[in-house]
Amino acid sequence: MANDGHQRADVDSDRLWRRHMEMAELGATQRGGVNRAALTPADIEVHSRLATWARDRGFTVEIDAYGNQFMRRPGSTDAPAIASGSHSDTQPTGGRFDGISGVLSAVEALEVIDDAGIVTSHPLEAVIWNNEEGTRFSPTNLGSAVYVGTAPADIMLAATDRDGVTMQSAVQTLREAIPWAGSRELGASMAAFVESHIEQGPELEAEGLDIGVVTAIQGTRKFEIEVIGDEAHAGTTPERMRRDAFVDAVRMVTALRELFHDPDDIMRFTVGRFEVSPGALAVVPGRVFFTVDIRHPDDATLARLGDRIEPVCGQTGSRCDVRVTETRRADSAPFEGAVPDAIETAARERGYSYKHMPSGAGHDARYVSEICPSGMVFVPCEQGLSHNERENATPEDIARGAQVVADTLLILDERQP
Amino acid sequence: MANDGHQRADVDSDRLWRRHMEMAELGATQRGGVNRAALTPADIEVHSRLATWARDRGFTVEIDAYGNQFMRRPGSTDAPAIASGSHSDTQPTGGRFDGISGVLSAVEALEVIDDAGIVTSHPLEAVIWNNEEGTRFSPTNLGSAVYVGTAPADIMLAATDRDGVTMQSAVQTLREAIPWAGSRELGASMAAFVESHIEQGPELEAEGLDIGVVTAIQGTRKFEIEVIGDEAHAGTTPERMRRDAFVDAVRMVTALRELFHDPDDIMRFTVGRFEVSPGALAVVPGRVFFTVDIRHPDDATLARLGDRIEPVCGQTGSRCDVRVTETRRADSAPFEGAVPDAIETAARERGYSYKHMPSGAGHDARYVSEICPSGMVFVPCEQGLSHNERENATPEDIARGAQVVADTLLILDERQP
Repeated sequence: MANDGHQRADVDSDRLWRRHMEMAELGATQRGGVNRAALTPADIEVHSRLATWARDRGFTVEIDAYGNQFMRRPGSTDAPAIASGSHSDTQPTGGRFDGISGVLSAVEALEVIDDAGIVTSHPLEAVIWNNEEGTRFSPTNLGSAVYVGTAPADIMLAATDRDGVTMQSAVQTLREAIPWAGSRELGASMAAFVESHIEQGPELEAEGLDIGVVTAIQGTRKFEIEVIGDEAHAGTTPERMRRDAFVDAVRMVTALRELFHDPDDIMRFTVGRFEVSPGALAVVPGRVFFTVDIRHPDDATLARLGDRIEPVCGQTGSRCDVRVTETRRADSAPFEGAVPDAIETAARERGYSYKHMPSGAGHDARYVSEICPSGMVFVPCEQGLSHNERENATPEDIARGAQVVADTLLILDERQP
Repeated sequence: MANDGHQRADVDSDRLWRRHMEMAELGATQRGGVNRAALTPADIEVHSRLATWARDRGFTVEIDAYGNQFMRRPGSTDAPAIASGSHSDTQPTGGRFDGISGVLSAVEALEVIDDAGIVTSHPLEAVIWNNEEGTRFSPTNLGSAVYVGTAPADIMLAATDRDGVTMQSAVQTLREAIPWAGSRELGASMAAFVESHIEQGPELEAEGLDIGVVTAIQGTRKFEIEVIGDEAHAGTTPERMRRDAFVDAVRMVTALRELFHDPDDIMRFTVGRFEVSPGALAVVPGRVFFTVDIRHPDDATLARLGDRIEPVCGQTGSRCDVRVTETRRADSAPFEGAVPDAIETAARERGYSYKHMPSGAGHDARYVSEICPSGMVFVPCEQGLSHNERENATPEDIARGAQVVADTLLILDERQP
């Protein structure tokens, strides 16, 4: 097998899988999934256990103002770190792999490199990016976006959850759980970043491939739509006198689905939240709030169709008032150069089958790529299921992903300045 | 003006309106409505104030096992009572008149009859039926239905609210607020019952009429529909692989709206609850729960179309599983004989304009009619708006309704055995 000169360290598949199962117990749901919102007690326990693991190894641990956590194995020089990691929070009905698997792969990589006594010139870091799923705090943003400065730290730290807890006080709770951790400045430089993640789509499994070398993250736009009608009595109010917000919202959604129908099945169109008020059996709904999440690799398509949402809703809501707000817009972001090249080298050297592919989902690496060369490793997941309690992957696939991360860190240590 | 021999007592419009405004403060919302679920502190305060009013008048107060409250002015014989009343609870975004106006009209009637020193042979009662809107407890039922035995008391007393409070313990809280109230047996007989209520529809106002003499309550059927698909990632899961419960539920609702479309606008079809799980921006919904409320004066139409709901949902939900449960079914219920006759007499004698009309909404009188002659008086309400914080009526219309109640009680005292 070819080897371009870097050192090697083999991951321990059993240890890696055990650690996945251990973390899956933190926030475990009855149906075998995980519900672990950012910086809830279960999530802080993940941070705390991995910090303790790092300290036991003699690594340093740093936490930044937004709660991103960095576990660092020193290098022989004071070069910026080569880092790997992902997030530890989940969707409310999330699975055992999304996010945490990328964190544990980074941890495993540092562990086997340390076990092998390899001296790297760059420090190596395993990172837990805070709040990637973003379901707890409002307004929300990714820890990686705050770190690189895309999202304003002051506003995001003032964000609150449903109980009025601010992100700032949640980060304080994290700090109190790991009082010996040092501080990291937001935006401190990195030499490179690689993130391992389950594919969350069906392609690798369907094609029988081991590894995806991610080429880009597709663009996305998110919208909030509010439909305002009039509450009325369900038994007495004739149809002609109703301003039923639910009826108009259903018409809008139906028209939007037609607009976004794609025979090639590349466009992703999802209504994930749809909230009807007051939500009583015998009351004609006076208000509906719903979200639209669209994604497409082609920015022009996303721009053209996304711009149609507001006029289509306005034309379709025949009796109610409608307000459309775009809450997020991101063009597609490519991964090019050093990191995907190193990932491909690693996969090829290990004899893993692989292909280049875009990511359907957004990831922390998207934001980190704004401050250093970045890339992503995909591993197959069962039936492409994700954001679902039945999300699953095999120990072998997970181990191959972690192995590519370990090798990529060592290759980048050789190649990067 | 003709008078068929009964005594008369004139209501005090100012006092009646003041009492409406006083009660509207209990559970008042910021937008001028009322949110007063059954036996919440605000609702218990209504019960308590009216109980105190009754005691000050020398009337007795009794509460039954389900929390229905009876304020009784004795008669000269031990005949069963002639009663009037309605409910004091509201929808979450309810108004100032629905329910409470019928209670206060009964209270006003007893008060002016007492002021006039009229001796009736029947006891007269003002009743607060518990839990008519039924939004707090699950499973739910009307206090009047429990009183007459249509709904099983043991099951309905074990019903719980979202905090796990049982109806039984809520009734206990009511009893503790009025510790001196006596007990009433469920189902104790009544000689007759008349309920005053805002129309909750547009007809009286549109036709410039003072009073509606209610002929019947239209039939209704209620359904719960659960759609089960699979949660999936919004960014990665192709349309062809989704089992999106929201998409299928929207299809079902659209097909049902077509099925229930009525060019004559007599059919009432309402989806009042529509709950999407897990309800996250980036997750394809795995479950939708929604309700269907249909009403029509013709029982055969209601039977035929209601029976189509399950097959239509089954045929329309192309990818998801669907379960349809009928939670309530009631044929239309006529009001005939002594009570509507007395209401018509009263309206005619007072020179009020009136018409006979069916009720679009269900009411307590529907159930009370199973144990004694019953009827209803409708008063106009602004734009027919109800189950809405902007629900409104005029002091004059409200007073005319209370006057008809007072006169009807006295007419029935003469005419009923």
